[in-house]
Amino acid sequence: MSAQGTPAQVYCMNILGHTFEDYMEMVKRFHGSPAPGVLIGGFMVDLAVRNLPEGILYDAICETRSCLPDAIQLLTPCTAGNAWLKVINLGRYALTLYDKDKESGHKGVRVFLDTEKVRAWPEINAWFFKLNPSKEQGRVELLRQIKEAGEAILGLQRVSVKPQFTVKQHKGRISVCPECREAYPADDGETCLSCQGNALYL
Amino acid sequence: MSAQGTPAQVYCMNILGHTFEDYMEMVKRFHGSPAPGVLIGGFMVDLAVRNLPEGILYDAICETRSCLPDAIQLLTPCTAGNAWLKVINLGRYALTLYDKDKESGHKGVRVFLDTEKVRAWPEINAWFFKLNPSKEQGRVELLRQIKEAGEAILGLQRVSVKPQFTVKQHKGRISVCPECREAYPADDGETCLSCQGNALYL
Repeated sequence: MSAQGTPAQVYCMNILGHTFEDYMEMVKRFHGSPAPGVLIGGFMVDLAVRNLPEGILYDAICETRSCLPDAIQLLTPCTAGNAWLKVINLGRYALTLYDKDKESGHKGVRVFLDTEKVRAWPEINAWFFKLNPSKEQGRVELLRQIKEAGEAILGLQRVSVKPQFTVKQHKGRISVCPECREAYPADDGETCLSCQGNALYL
Repeated sequence: MSAQGTPAQVYCMNILGHTFEDYMEMVKRFHGSPAPGVLIGGFMVDLAVRNLPEGILYDAICETRSCLPDAIQLLTPCTAGNAWLKVINLGRYALTLYDKDKESGHKGVRVFLDTEKVRAWPEINAWFFKLNPSKEQGRVELLRQIKEAGEAILGLQRVSVKPQFTVKQHKGRISVCPECREAYPADDGETCLSCQGNALYL
């Protein structure tokens, strides 16, 4: 951090109060490796949180299954298991944090990887568009560019989430399946979904 | 832990090396509250891991979206974002850990909440079958019973996961969507899935 840094520049070097290096360690522990997508995801979550009204409770939508859900789970209260994070796989590298409160109209902030801005960072561009034959090629330079770019490769939109995607699913009454003898939501039918022909196992 | 405890009894009081109290703190930090489902999930993951062959790499399947994915993410290398954890919502409180290696036939261990065994623990039974009108009713006693029951309410099955549920999804070539200008998997079509009429936002 240079002494000449403007406040904005200083802020961009941190990920919700963590240094890039600290965040990289958190990612390694949780995700198993310092995956570029989770690292960029840190800057995405940071940018989104900074653009939400202060003090609100928010839910998260992640538009991809790859990597980004872990950045959200590491840095926000939203997890796969507490239902504050919904992964709706549209194949876009984007996330939305939005006000839980129905009265707010579920207004929120969507952050995405801006393909135009990414062009200025050749290693990030090559990784994102899978242009490199080997995963390991340019790895050190890729991480350096991710750290240096920070939020410079991101775009931000103000959005309102459609009501059907904000609904909390409740399981309703719980029954015991007459076939497998396990508990299941009675609304699923006479037997559980597995015993309705969806067995996962041989 | 009593001095008379057999090795088996001693083991059951721990969740993959964490005390119940330590694990409860981990759950609070990640999940937001010491949710009964995530606490029981700790004993489920522990039982599954102990019954896998030592030293193998494993993937996880979770048969419910509620709570249990967070126990798996906290205690194993499998997360939503690294694709080692798959949530396939069949509404059953069960998880499977299975050998990643195709040559193994994806053999693994499935752990579930045994509805017969749960009957012996009235607060757990009332929580699981949603028999209590208030969430807070009997909370202290519920947590006590969860800790005391440990793996006594669980069942275990040896399974082989059907090949179609072990497939890793690859995104293939990445294009820029001509409508939204964001990157997406070219296999999704001429435009990204969002621009094909699946917009999440108003």
